[in-house]
Amino acid sequence: MMIKIGILGLGTVASGVVEILEKNGSSINKRIGDELLIEKILIKNKNKKRDLKLKDNLLTTDINELIDNPEIDMIVELIGGEEPAKEYIEKSLIKGKSVVTANKLVMAKHGLNILKLARKNNVQINYEGSVAGGIPIINPLKESLAANKITEISGILNGTTNYILSKMTQKGMNYENALKEAQDLGYAESEPSSDIDGYDAAFKIAILASIAYESPVNINSFYIEGIRNIKLNDIKMAKELNYVIKLLATAKRSDAGLDIRVHPSFIPAEHPLALVNESYNAIYIQGDAVGDVMSYGKGAGKLPTGSAVVSDIIQLARDISSNQRPEDRDTLFYNIPLLNIKEVYNSFYMRLEVRDKPGVMSRVTGILGNNNVSLASVIQKNRLTPVVPLVLITHPIREVNIQKSIIELKNLEDLIKINNIIRVEEELIS
Amino acid sequence: MMIKIGILGLGTVASGVVEILEKNGSSINKRIGDELLIEKILIKNKNKKRDLKLKDNLLTTDINELIDNPEIDMIVELIGGEEPAKEYIEKSLIKGKSVVTANKLVMAKHGLNILKLARKNNVQINYEGSVAGGIPIINPLKESLAANKITEISGILNGTTNYILSKMTQKGMNYENALKEAQDLGYAESEPSSDIDGYDAAFKIAILASIAYESPVNINSFYIEGIRNIKLNDIKMAKELNYVIKLLATAKRSDAGLDIRVHPSFIPAEHPLALVNESYNAIYIQGDAVGDVMSYGKGAGKLPTGSAVVSDIIQLARDISSNQRPEDRDTLFYNIPLLNIKEVYNSFYMRLEVRDKPGVMSRVTGILGNNNVSLASVIQKNRLTPVVPLVLITHPIREVNIQKSIIELKNLEDLIKINNIIRVEEELIS
Repeated sequence: MMIKIGILGLGTVASGVVEILEKNGSSINKRIGDELLIEKILIKNKNKKRDLKLKDNLLTTDINELIDNPEIDMIVELIGGEEPAKEYIEKSLIKGKSVVTANKLVMAKHGLNILKLARKNNVQINYEGSVAGGIPIINPLKESLAANKITEISGILNGTTNYILSKMTQKGMNYENALKEAQDLGYAESEPSSDIDGYDAAFKIAILASIAYESPVNINSFYIEGIRNIKLNDIKMAKELNYVIKLLATAKRSDAGLDIRVHPSFIPAEHPLALVNESYNAIYIQGDAVGDVMSYGKGAGKLPTGSAVVSDIIQLARDISSNQRPEDRDTLFYNIPLLNIKEVYNSFYMRLEVRDKPGVMSRVTGILGNNNVSLASVIQKNRLTPVVPLVLITHPIREVNIQKSIIELKNLEDLIKINNIIRVEEELIS
Repeated sequence: MMIKIGILGLGTVASGVVEILEKNGSSINKRIGDELLIEKILIKNKNKKRDLKLKDNLLTTDINELIDNPEIDMIVELIGGEEPAKEYIEKSLIKGKSVVTANKLVMAKHGLNILKLARKNNVQINYEGSVAGGIPIINPLKESLAANKITEISGILNGTTNYILSKMTQKGMNYENALKEAQDLGYAESEPSSDIDGYDAAFKIAILASIAYESPVNINSFYIEGIRNIKLNDIKMAKELNYVIKLLATAKRSDAGLDIRVHPSFIPAEHPLALVNESYNAIYIQGDAVGDVMSYGKGAGKLPTGSAVVSDIIQLARDISSNQRPEDRDTLFYNIPLLNIKEVYNSFYMRLEVRDKPGVMSRVTGILGNNNVSLASVIQKNRLTPVVPLVLITHPIREVNIQKSIIELKNLEDLIKINNIIRVEEELIS
C-alpha cells in the first residue's frame, strides 16, 4: 500500500515538511510500515520561483485536486491564517480525510467545531505544530500526563517577544531597537502586532488549556496584553529586584474556574522560565501526580515546526496503514467558566512619578491601604526634584482593588504619572 | 464493559498508582471511555500493615490468580528488580495480556526479547515509568519526535546522585555528608551502589538510546562510572572554571556508531542542564529537524512515577476498550555498533599533585604533548612546598591518548598523585 498526502501551502513550514520527508523518508517509512508519498501540493502562484526541487505535476492551484482526490488519505494544512484554511480543513474532514495542521488561529478560534466535525466523519485531526513548534506538548498533555489533574500551565509561547525582552534584559537595548533587530533577523514580521500584542501566545494557551482542562476556551473571554509598554526602566528595576520580565501565558485551574491570561510578568530570576532566552519557548506544567515538569526548545521555524507536523503525519499514517479506527482523543467533556481577571489575585509592580512634596508617600500609600493593597517593597530611586520616581511591589490583591487604587491615584494632585503596572508572578513553582 | 487490571507489587510506586486511580478515577474513566478496575494485587506478605484502604479479596500472594485470570486484561508490573519481575512479565505476555512496567533493569537488560515476545503474542508493553519518573520521555521520543534523526541524548537521569552533587556544589558539603543527607531524606538507599555507581542511569540511557536509535543497546558494552570519587576540591575547581559537575548519561550518534556512556562530567555553568538541581532529572535531546529540546521534572517518587505508569495504563486501556490492535511501536530495526570509549574524543580535567621542583611543569606538559594532548587551561593553586596542586584542562583528545599519558605520568618521579580525572563536556548544545 501507499499513504498519499496532500499539502496545502508551500511557505516556510510546508517547505520544512517537504525537506524532512525527503531527508528522513526511508526511516519514516520504516516507522509507518508503509510508503508515504506527497501526491499534491496546493499553491497560490505557479510562476513563483522556489528553492525546492519537486517532481512534475506535484503543484496545483486547485484545491479540488486534493480534496476530491480519493487517492489522498490525509490533508496537511499549512496555509496559516483563518480563511481559506478553516474552510479547507472542514471540507477535508467532511470528505473523510484526516487532517494535520499547525494553524493555531483556526484551532484556537474554531477548535471545538473542528473536533466535532472530525469525530462525526470518523477521521482525526492532529495539531501538535500549532503550539511551541517542535517542542512535544500537545501529545504529552493528552497522553503522557493523562493520569493527572492539571492545575497550572505557564509558558513562554512566543519567540518574537521573548527575543525582544531578552535583548532588552541582556544588552540594555530599548524596545524599538530590539524589535528592529528581531525584524532584521526574521524573528518578527514587519507588521508584528500578532506577536507583540500577545495574540499569538493567546491562541496557543487557549489550545493548551482546552486540552489540559478538557473544556473549550473562548479566546475573547480572557485578558491579553502585549509588551509594547515595557520600558528599559522596568527591565532595570526588575533586575534590581531579582526578577526578569517575560511575556507569560498562564492557565491555572481553581475550584472557581479557569484563570487564563497573557501579559508581561515579573518572574523570580531563579525560576527555570526566567532562564529561557532568545527565541526559545518553554512550557511549565503542574499536575497533581507528576508535580512540575518543564519542556524547552525552539518554538517556531521551518524545521522545528516541520518536526511536529511530520510527527503528526507519521502517527496518522500508521493508523491509516493498519486500518485502525481514529482514536477519539479530543475530549472536551466540561464547560469550566473562565475567571474575570478583575477577580483574580496578583502581586503588582507599580512604577510611578510623584511630586517631591512633604507627605506625598503617606498620601500614595494611604490610597493603596484604603483599597486593602499592602506593600511588599517600596523603592525610591534617583530623586530628581521636583520629580520622585517611586517603585512599589504589592502583596497579592484582587485586580479590582488595584484598578480602584489607580483611579484614586490619578485624582491625586501629587501624582505626575503612572509609568507602568506589571503583574508579579510569585506563585510559580520553582 | 470494564477493563480489569492486575498489579504486581504494592511498594512505593504501586501505592502511588492505586492512589492516582482512586483520586482521578472518574476523569481517567472518561478518558478511557470505559471503567478501569483493579482486580487483584500481588503482594509478598498478607500480614504487612498498609496505609491504603483496599477492598476485600484484592490482595493475593499467588501470581497465578492474576496471570491465569482471563478477566484480567492487563498486568502492571511494579515489583522491580530482575526476578521474578522478568518471569512474570514474560508469562503475562505469553498469556496474551498487555503489560505496563516501570522496571528499568528488566527493560534495559531484556528489552529486546520482551518486545519480541509482546509482538509475537499480539500484545503491547508500555514502560514510560522506567525512565525519568513522571517526565514524558519515552512516548515523546517514539511519537512526537518520530520525524527526526536523533543525534544526541544527554540526561541527568539519577536523582540521588544529582541531589548529592547539588549539595556538594551549593552547600560545600563533602560527598559522605551529602550521601548521608540523601539517605536520611529517603533519596538514597542504605545500599546506594546502583545509584552512586551509575548503574541506574546506565539502565535508563540504554532504554532511551535503543528507542531513539532503533537499535538494541547492550548495557555491558558501554562505559559506566559513578560519583564516588568526586571530591569537594573538584567541585570547587569546576566552579572556579565556570563549570558544574553532573553525573551525565549521554548517547550520541555518529557515522562510526553510538557513543554511549555514564560518568561525571564538567558541564558549562550556563548550560540548561547545569541548572538542574536537587533530585530533579532532565533530558536534553537533539534532533536534525527539531534542534534541541529539553524536558525537566521529578525523576522518581511515588506520584511522579505513578503518573507515568497510569498514563501507560490509560493508553492500553483505551486500545483494549476500542478493540484496537496493539500498535507495533517498538522498532529495533538496526544493529548499530557501540563505540569503545577509548576511541572517543573528550576534553579532560586533570587534578594532580606534583613535587615543587624546577622543570616539573615542563616534564608534565611534555608527557602530555608527546601523546598529542594539548592544554586549554593550566591552573596552579595554593602552592604548598613541597607539593604543587596542578589543574589541567585539555583540548578534545582520544581517551586512549589520555590513558597513555596517565601511565607515563605515573612513572614520572615528579608526580605525587593523580587526584582525579573528569571528562569535560564542551560540545553540549546550549
